Amino acid sequence: MILIDNFKEAFGTSSNNEGIKNGYILLEGDKIEKIGSINDEDYGIIKDREDVEIIDATGMLVLPGLINTHTHAGMNLLRGYADDYKLHTWLTEKIWPFESRMNEEDIYWGTKLAIIEMIKNGVTTFNDMYFATDRVIDAVRESGIRADLGYGLIEENDGEKGLEESVRLIEMYDGYLNNRVKINLAPHSPYTCSEDYLKEVMKIADKYNSMIHIHVAETKEEVDDLVNDSGKTPVQYLDEIGLFNYHTLAAHGVHLSDNDIKILAENNVHISHNPASNMKLGSGIIRLKELLDAGINVSLGTDGVASNNGLDLIHDVRLASYLQKAVNNDPTVIPLNNILEIVTTNGAKALGNAEIGELKEGKKADVILINTHNKPAYTPDYNSLSNIFYAGSGRDVDTVIIDGRLIMENRELKTLDEDKVYDEVANRADRLSE
Amino acid sequence: MILIDNFKEAFGTSSNNEGIKNGYILLEGDKIEKIGSINDEDYGIIKDREDVEIIDATGMLVLPGLINTHTHAGMNLLRGYADDYKLHTWLTEKIWPFESRMNEEDIYWGTKLAIIEMIKNGVTTFNDMYFATDRVIDAVRESGIRADLGYGLIEENDGEKGLEESVRLIEMYDGYLNNRVKINLAPHSPYTCSEDYLKEVMKIADKYNSMIHIHVAETKEEVDDLVNDSGKTPVQYLDEIGLFNYHTLAAHGVHLSDNDIKILAENNVHISHNPASNMKLGSGIIRLKELLDAGINVSLGTDGVASNNGLDLIHDVRLASYLQKAVNNDPTVIPLNNILEIVTTNGAKALGNAEIGELKEGKKADVILINTHNKPAYTPDYNSLSNIFYAGSGRDVDTVIIDGRLIMENRELKTLDEDKVYDEVANRADRLSE
Ligand SMILES: [Zn+2]
Ligand SMILES: [Zn+2]
Repeated sequence: MILIDNFKEAFGTSSNNEGIKNGYILLEGDKIEKIGSINDEDYGIIKDREDVEIIDATGMLVLPGLINTHTHAGMNLLRGYADDYKLHTWLTEKIWPFESRMNEEDIYWGTKLAIIEMIKNGVTTFNDMYFATDRVIDAVRESGIRADLGYGLIEENDGEKGLEESVRLIEMYDGYLNNRVKINLAPHSPYTCSEDYLKEVMKIADKYNSMIHIHVAETKEEVDDLVNDSGKTPVQYLDEIGLFNYHTLAAHGVHLSDNDIKILAENNVHISHNPASNMKLGSGIIRLKELLDAGINVSLGTDGVASNNGLDLIHDVRLASYLQKAVNNDPTVIPLNNILEIVTTNGAKALGNAEIGELKEGKKADVILINTHNKPAYTPDYNSLSNIFYAGSGRDVDTVIIDGRLIMENRELKTLDEDKVYDEVANRADRLSE
Repeated sequence: MILIDNFKEAFGTSSNNEGIKNGYILLEGDKIEKIGSINDEDYGIIKDREDVEIIDATGMLVLPGLINTHTHAGMNLLRGYADDYKLHTWLTEKIWPFESRMNEEDIYWGTKLAIIEMIKNGVTTFNDMYFATDRVIDAVRESGIRADLGYGLIEENDGEKGLEESVRLIEMYDGYLNNRVKINLAPHSPYTCSEDYLKEVMKIADKYNSMIHIHVAETKEEVDDLVNDSGKTPVQYLDEIGLFNYHTLAAHGVHLSDNDIKILAENNVHISHNPASNMKLGSGIIRLKELLDAGINVSLGTDGVASNNGLDLIHDVRLASYLQKAVNNDPTVIPLNNILEIVTTNGAKALGNAEIGELKEGKKADVILINTHNKPAYTPDYNSLSNIFYAGSGRDVDTVIIDGRLIMENRELKTLDEDKVYDEVANRADRLSE
């Protein structure tokens, strides 16, 4: 058992986002066993037990592990490779040629770098769409992180074999590692997968009760193209072919009409909002306020670091909030309560995982501790949640526990050799950037 | 003499922003004596000198100290005190009542907290508009930071006495501490200072050749009010009364017409852009691309942490860039070259200080080192400048040298007792937030 001892304040413990002050969290196996106050009678008894490993959380702030609902972890090999280019040039002259040179081992090491970066920023679960999924699973297993993985299906490249690969991954790995690994279906987008192909994907979703993870309406061009060809927006189109009958996580959702928002709400489609990527690529500005007002579940994604260029959810969710306050000319939009939900409970809902996203008895023990010592951003302390999300950084995360296992302490990873990963990635980057 | 030894790459050394790799910087007194490569003949000779204190910069990235051209340091006491409120409520019900309870000692400690936070984020110069300026100067002296200070003039509160105070400060402190302290004139805004009052300010500027630091066009309301009253925008009005005949640093400049931009350009008015504050308060979105295209010198300000809520210029300048890419639907807008300039050379120009903002022989020795060790954001390393500004954080700054003096090393402040400042601020915050 692990005792997170004497924390200063814990958030994500109740539905109204009020923190619990001066408490403890007891973990048993992969679960949260008990959350209480250090004034409780039980506290002394628990602390004295011989089978309890104590993590001193004095002065620390506690959050549920953060959830990144859209990324391409292997793309960490591309950080800083191509900045400030127009989208078409960026893709066709830089990103795609680079990716075509990447092999499965490159993806393995790029993913390890991404996982290190996520853990060091307090991310305990990520939803990935990429390739070489067996090797991605190796990186997940070694690191101890939680992951939802989908093999990225592009019809022209993958055809029938991609569907078979998806089935193989589901049968082999869904629920793997005490349910730390879940497999979903990841057709890349409506413009790279035909209606027939998407219907094959849906058949698999039917059989295995799988979630579908797909890019939707990231750029104006892709929306205009489909409207010109078919008279339908991507959302209308996906709705009409029946995709939204399945648990769907739509990444981006930048360019949406009022009618699109209505369709998404009616079908309980989940959105993964990627503010840093959308802003940096100049893709457009999501109608986040309207989406939340319509009751749509919006979570946060980093996207790949080719377009971010980091994996810090605390940074990115602040960006989401500030951008909406700016474009709506309204400082009350996306307040702190929304912010915490977007990176925790909304992420859990988006992934259809009722076991994560909250600090409650019986939930998975995915917990992060923020060390406020020697960090000016946490003084004064009128509102710790404000200090975390409006002044804090993923770099302030001190300790990470995933599935009941201590993965990082005092910013030292327990599971991976950081330096080895940096060296390997640097060598591979040299080769790949020729 | 200080030798910054064996750095990985230094930026801000040339006008095209290309870095110098694998080099050294020799500091003599308060100046940069020499910048060279470790392959130079001189290098071995310098390293062997007995009077040289060596700072091991192996693997580190080097930048000129960052310049924050608009803040209210004393407001660090208000971090997280009032978030997500409408502007009018925020000011009248929260900020102003709080500030009315603050005394000079509160401002002294709040300023010390701000200075700690700035140093820990690589800021070596800040331009402050606030009160209790003697005590602010005490904090500047103790900490070793460089500061441009103006007593914030609000006619109704300060009247003639405020002008006398400004003169006293100039005579007493301008050039103080080896020129680390400069005093400017800081009339708060055109809506809190009358034409007659601003003319008195100009007389002082005439006599002492002082810079004028003033809020201009931060909100749409203040622009609309003046247009309704006088038919003139704030920029037109300030131009007509002759303020722009003096070196003027206009903070914010959010709501500007094409004609305003023309006037600012013609008069070489400097802008301090405050992206985090403007976004968080929902004040509006600056026309940054148009300002730069017009040849206007735009630098970066954090504003006070009541509306930011931090003092991390690396964070804020990325925000500025991403916001402009988003609103212009163009990823090429505010590229890395602009980003570096905005927080270094443009800041120096804004403050009329030719001695700072660049790493060049003869300039002031204001230098910051970024430690990339154990930080995933710096791998791969195709472009270190991209990694600093698109993936990095002020928290990655390891070492800070100001005016030739080692102020922070390994994130440990040499000049101030951090814990003492946090404790004092916390106690004062308790009292003030009653
Ligand atoms: Zn994506
Ligand atoms: Zn201001």
